[in-house]
Amino acid sequence: MKIIELKLGKRSYQIKTGFGVIKNLGREIRRLNLGTDAFIVTNNRIKLRYAKNLLKPLKESGINYIFKTVADSEKSKSLTSCLRVIQELARFDQKRKVFIIAFGGGVIGDLSGFISAIYKRGVPYIQIPTTLLACVDSSIGGKTGVDLKFGKNLVGAFYQPRLVMSELSFLKSLSSRQVRAGLAEIIKYAIIKDKKLFVYLEKNYPKIINLQKRALEHVVNRCAQIKSGIIQRDETEEKGLRTILNFGHTLGHAIEAAGNYQKYNHGEGIALGMVLAGQISKELGLISENVRSRIENLIKSAGLPVFIKGLSLKKIIEAYYRDKKFIGEINRLVLIRDIGKTVIKQNVPLNIIKDSLASRLNL
Amino acid sequence: MKIIELKLGKRSYQIKTGFGVIKNLGREIRRLNLGTDAFIVTNNRIKLRYAKNLLKPLKESGINYIFKTVADSEKSKSLTSCLRVIQELARFDQKRKVFIIAFGGGVIGDLSGFISAIYKRGVPYIQIPTTLLACVDSSIGGKTGVDLKFGKNLVGAFYQPRLVMSELSFLKSLSSRQVRAGLAEIIKYAIIKDKKLFVYLEKNYPKIINLQKRALEHVVNRCAQIKSGIIQRDETEEKGLRTILNFGHTLGHAIEAAGNYQKYNHGEGIALGMVLAGQISKELGLISENVRSRIENLIKSAGLPVFIKGLSLKKIIEAYYRDKKFIGEINRLVLIRDIGKTVIKQNVPLNIIKDSLASRLNL
Repeated sequence: MKIIELKLGKRSYQIKTGFGVIKNLGREIRRLNLGTDAFIVTNNRIKLRYAKNLLKPLKESGINYIFKTVADSEKSKSLTSCLRVIQELARFDQKRKVFIIAFGGGVIGDLSGFISAIYKRGVPYIQIPTTLLACVDSSIGGKTGVDLKFGKNLVGAFYQPRLVMSELSFLKSLSSRQVRAGLAEIIKYAIIKDKKLFVYLEKNYPKIINLQKRALEHVVNRCAQIKSGIIQRDETEEKGLRTILNFGHTLGHAIEAAGNYQKYNHGEGIALGMVLAGQISKELGLISENVRSRIENLIKSAGLPVFIKGLSLKKIIEAYYRDKKFIGEINRLVLIRDIGKTVIKQNVPLNIIKDSLASRLNL
Repeated sequence: MKIIELKLGKRSYQIKTGFGVIKNLGREIRRLNLGTDAFIVTNNRIKLRYAKNLLKPLKESGINYIFKTVADSEKSKSLTSCLRVIQELARFDQKRKVFIIAFGGGVIGDLSGFISAIYKRGVPYIQIPTTLLACVDSSIGGKTGVDLKFGKNLVGAFYQPRLVMSELSFLKSLSSRQVRAGLAEIIKYAIIKDKKLFVYLEKNYPKIINLQKRALEHVVNRCAQIKSGIIQRDETEEKGLRTILNFGHTLGHAIEAAGNYQKYNHGEGIALGMVLAGQISKELGLISENVRSRIENLIKSAGLPVFIKGLSLKKIIEAYYRDKKFIGEINRLVLIRDIGKTVIKQNVPLNIIKDSLASRLNL
């Protein structure tokens, strides 16, 4: 087991990563004095497969609980779905001290975190991520949110969990495609902050895909460490430091959206976004062709897409413009000047962005 | 015009009180760099009567705007209504920088403040209260929230406005009953924190009821000052200091709820709650009969109820128990040991509470 301390004063918390960490769930809840009644948000698939792993430690510690399942889909992150879950929570919360457990992937984590932020102006919550993507990214940092029909994550709050338990044995039920999606975010951390991790991944990516215990624990913990370091310095994205976490995301989101979130999942979207960010970085003379191609090669070796299939340039550019209001100013791109070194560029010429996209279109 | 600085570091803001303060609205928005597009939440009655007072300064400063009206009722504070308003906000927020103006009483202030807290994880908002109650209480301190069917204010956030503009000329359209409701909160501030204000009110309460300019400005500003002082020391109600603002509210809420929020408005509820808190304080030997009767006399002189009509003891006690989970521990009452001096008592014997209620029932 590995432990990271995310230090945010009164809002500090631990991220525990490993095989078997979940066995201590009850003890952790008591140590942190989170409450007596656990409202566990999850989906049916996870509940069927892994509920028993939570129930044993909860029962041993005398903690009362209820499961609230939501659909295994982005639709569960709508404000309407949020309203339904919160009514259930209020119904459950009758006598004692309630807290929330987010038991699932990013959708469940974001939804549950937001509900924790606004119910009674804030109740404690724990993140128990069940996807590799959620382990290394969405479970850490307190960025919670739900979707409106006008855009994703338009409603939300910065609200930190009290504990993150990344129980890696839960990952064994993931499809190979889901594992690779998580690997995309892992590659992102290496590119933005850790050349050593990048070299490690170049050698050891098959171990991650095969969920080899030691490699997985090492890599998930390292990503949690990198993300924690950034969050500690810029909790609410006011200083612009948190922005580098969006490497590959600006164009990645546009590709995801252009495919109606059906064609490419989040990891695949940002894999493509990272290939493009590498290409734009090279085009602007920030990195050499050698660095650019190492990035593309690792992404390709990881079984992630490096060419965009079945989407038109027009559709992607349209989605890019729709998204920009949420990202902030026009054309603010996170680029790199080496592996491990980011640079933020504003007003990158649109033709460079379009050219990079066009060269990756494989219709 | 009077100005209070509410000091909360980066979240500091001014409370401007007086006749004519609204004329500076546009300049203030520009000074604080709040945005270019104002989403004004209000109701039809206020819009019809006072929209022009906002539009002139907004237009002069070139600020784009839209009005979103909600029903003039507590129902507008439901999570469902919140969802509708937020969809409208997202539709309006297309190109530039949006901010919110809460233009109304407590319902509109609480709803708009909450929407400001969660839309895009926080956008700026201004409170422009139009009731005496909102001027002295709900517009200040960033306690925002909406209702669930399981209870009032069960969903919410602490989120400070960027400015409060208490334009006192807006109060002239209030009914006498609404003015007295505001006076109840003013009396509360005097009882918990300011004997001098209490003495002033004993002499000058008719001036407040008649909305006499200088008296009104003095009293509203003094209450804003008292509330600001408390908020500065306990922004998120973690230190228990903010609790004293609930003087008269525990039993007051129960009386309001027992009457289905129809029989007594909030000010009348807490007027009764304060009479009861005085009586319980006397019963526990904390204050003399003289102090108790001064409180009752001022409340009565202000035209506020001091006897409970048409409600049974059983109904009030039931509502009291339903409410307690939100207030925190059982039987935590804010009492007084003199005018201007509060004391918090836990586990006050239920029979003392019941006796005080029974002696005030006038069926």
